[in-house]
Amino acid sequence: MKAEIIAVGSELLLGQISNTNARFISSQLAELGIDVYFHTVVGDNPKRLLNSIEIAENRADLIIFTGGLGPTKDDLTKETISAHLNKKLVLDKQALLYIEDFFKRMNREMTENNKKQALVLEGCTVLPNKNGMAPGMLLTTENHSYILLPGPPKEMEPMFQFEAKPLLPKLFNEETVILSHVMRFYGIGEAELETRVQDLLDNQTNPTLAPLASDGEVTLRLTAKSNSEAEAWEKIELLQKEIFDRVGEYVYGYNNDSLASKLQEILVENQLTISAAESMTAGLFQSEIAAVKGMGAVLVGGMITYTESIKVNQLGVEQQVIDDFGVVSSECAVAMATCIKEKFDTNIGIGITGAAGPDAHGGQPAGTVWIGIALNDMSPVSYKLSLSGMRNTNRLRAVKFTIHYLIRLLREQGYKTI
Amino acid sequence: MKAEIIAVGSELLLGQISNTNARFISSQLAELGIDVYFHTVVGDNPKRLLNSIEIAENRADLIIFTGGLGPTKDDLTKETISAHLNKKLVLDKQALLYIEDFFKRMNREMTENNKKQALVLEGCTVLPNKNGMAPGMLLTTENHSYILLPGPPKEMEPMFQFEAKPLLPKLFNEETVILSHVMRFYGIGEAELETRVQDLLDNQTNPTLAPLASDGEVTLRLTAKSNSEAEAWEKIELLQKEIFDRVGEYVYGYNNDSLASKLQEILVENQLTISAAESMTAGLFQSEIAAVKGMGAVLVGGMITYTESIKVNQLGVEQQVIDDFGVVSSECAVAMATCIKEKFDTNIGIGITGAAGPDAHGGQPAGTVWIGIALNDMSPVSYKLSLSGMRNTNRLRAVKFTIHYLIRLLREQGYKTI
Repeated sequence: MKAEIIAVGSELLLGQISNTNARFISSQLAELGIDVYFHTVVGDNPKRLLNSIEIAENRADLIIFTGGLGPTKDDLTKETISAHLNKKLVLDKQALLYIEDFFKRMNREMTENNKKQALVLEGCTVLPNKNGMAPGMLLTTENHSYILLPGPPKEMEPMFQFEAKPLLPKLFNEETVILSHVMRFYGIGEAELETRVQDLLDNQTNPTLAPLASDGEVTLRLTAKSNSEAEAWEKIELLQKEIFDRVGEYVYGYNNDSLASKLQEILVENQLTISAAESMTAGLFQSEIAAVKGMGAVLVGGMITYTESIKVNQLGVEQQVIDDFGVVSSECAVAMATCIKEKFDTNIGIGITGAAGPDAHGGQPAGTVWIGIALNDMSPVSYKLSLSGMRNTNRLRAVKFTIHYLIRLLREQGYKTI
Repeated sequence: MKAEIIAVGSELLLGQISNTNARFISSQLAELGIDVYFHTVVGDNPKRLLNSIEIAENRADLIIFTGGLGPTKDDLTKETISAHLNKKLVLDKQALLYIEDFFKRMNREMTENNKKQALVLEGCTVLPNKNGMAPGMLLTTENHSYILLPGPPKEMEPMFQFEAKPLLPKLFNEETVILSHVMRFYGIGEAELETRVQDLLDNQTNPTLAPLASDGEVTLRLTAKSNSEAEAWEKIELLQKEIFDRVGEYVYGYNNDSLASKLQEILVENQLTISAAESMTAGLFQSEIAAVKGMGAVLVGGMITYTESIKVNQLGVEQQVIDDFGVVSSECAVAMATCIKEKFDTNIGIGITGAAGPDAHGGQPAGTVWIGIALNDMSPVSYKLSLSGMRNTNRLRAVKFTIHYLIRLLREQGYKTI
């Protein structure tokens, strides 16, 4: 089974946007075990689009198009395919109703050219668009399958995932169930993780096992094929247990979890309130955890103490601590955590201080970070990082490590974390 | 002049990364007036790579490759081109010295396979790699020019920009100077901006004028061709003046400026210190401006007041204000701004309160934001936003609008801002 993804849109060729659609679809197809051999990007030009289609037909069974389904004259994907395959464009009443309704809800007048979006290839399966107007299409001919998807990622991604993807195994008479499961790690490098599971990587068959690193996080994707969902799950769980036994301490979550969403779950579940005093991260820790809806139930607030005098006069860190140990020190991080916890009356207090870079700060080289955590009546703890990235990479890493250490500490202290 | 960009790497086809290299190179070529008609992505497979090269030779004059120049067996770009064009691979001594030096600096042993990276196509112009090991190449044959670049963006981007791009005009016997200049706008929508300069867009020849919207910001790119840099600049300045006369109030900067970097420049230049009290943005305003190196000179710090009691008991907002007007109100935003300015003893105090969404908050619908600004002895002012995005889009918009309003206020008050 070979696939090719053709993105249509001059804005891609002008370098105004990246082809993130091809990345998304490719990762989804990889889960299904469908090989993608080529991506093509072509402009809003019917002749060159036709050229791309003909080339793709020579080297792929499944051709997936993104873009060019909108209402303007530039949108030519289905028109070009219609002419090429000699399939008429017919009005899809369901899609038209939906488009009319869309304009009603937006309280805007529907212009005539918007009706064009309800035209679909004769004989296709219509893929409803729940986040926009233009419907998608799946058309199968003797030798090929064609999937047409809209260009905006917020329309394309859910349409592919929920409307197109479930049809793919059937399309190729595949009776097999394919299940995919992602384990998420923090605090361990990709190389170290791979070493610890090298034999599992070397001998993988079913489930397959794929590591991926990005933004300082590492994931392992476990993909199992079987005749039933239950059997596929069994295979995945067996392998997962083996991995957990080896590197379980670094697992923070699964699938679509993020460090912040996981932290929120844990704090809400255990009814723990949190506050933070941030220096080098300047609010990034609190902003990142507040990005998750519902954090208001546990995040009380905090302070950004960029200067020494604010640390002392507003937060309440003793001047002596700073004089003796400096602002970038275990002692200062612990004092910040303790002071904010008491001042804001929370279960957890976080203190983050460091030198984000590129310059040294508080007598410490760029990349030095101290994280303090005060948790209820426990004696506060601190962690040191020596980061080597650019300023803002270091700031984000400091935030992620803070969440990682906090989750680990809560687990060690017997709170429910998984 | 037609160009095609071929990205080589199975990780792209597996959906592990996006092809941001094609976007970068395309935008750079657009500045030079070189048309990109296709992007292709192909895996680490010599047969399929050859197929892509042959297709590209049929439809492009300039073919730019990214990726596949590394030390491993999978890296096959130059080997495939070498065989296809019948050009030997020869050792580039300069590149080898650099690679050896790289290992010395990293304090690591150089393995034999790394020498492979110093091999280049016979007769090519070597493009030095100042951020990695594998050099790039520019090779010209009778009908085509081939540029080979490394895959990692941090190596590829500077190599293209500083080593390859300057060679391109000469390559095509182009004696013209091409200059590009970006004007950056905030607080005006793309449609509105385009309407205000529609005649300039319709009648553009030299300079050309290209609008682009992303993340709530709009830019206009002015590109002029001429026989000399001075003449090209003259053309750009003339058009820029015309645009400034119409929509100058929304211009916040040029080229690589960001709202945050511009704000920092202005605050440092005018020696104005700043603090902020944030509710819905939860530290994002301070974190965004602290992302710019050197913000420590003017950012003192602030508070994150996620709960009502913190607003009252820690920040000092009067309970009566909240009881009378609610936490999402002009009055509360102004009180937050005034309190933090006084408490942290700064020239400027910022207060941000709102309902990020998806739920309503403080009796106001999701997307309602109030921004308060207190500036020295001026009577404090407030601004209301009604945003319609998702939670985190709204939070980021609120931050950007805060910077925009602050810059505009400082300009109105006679501070130097451009």
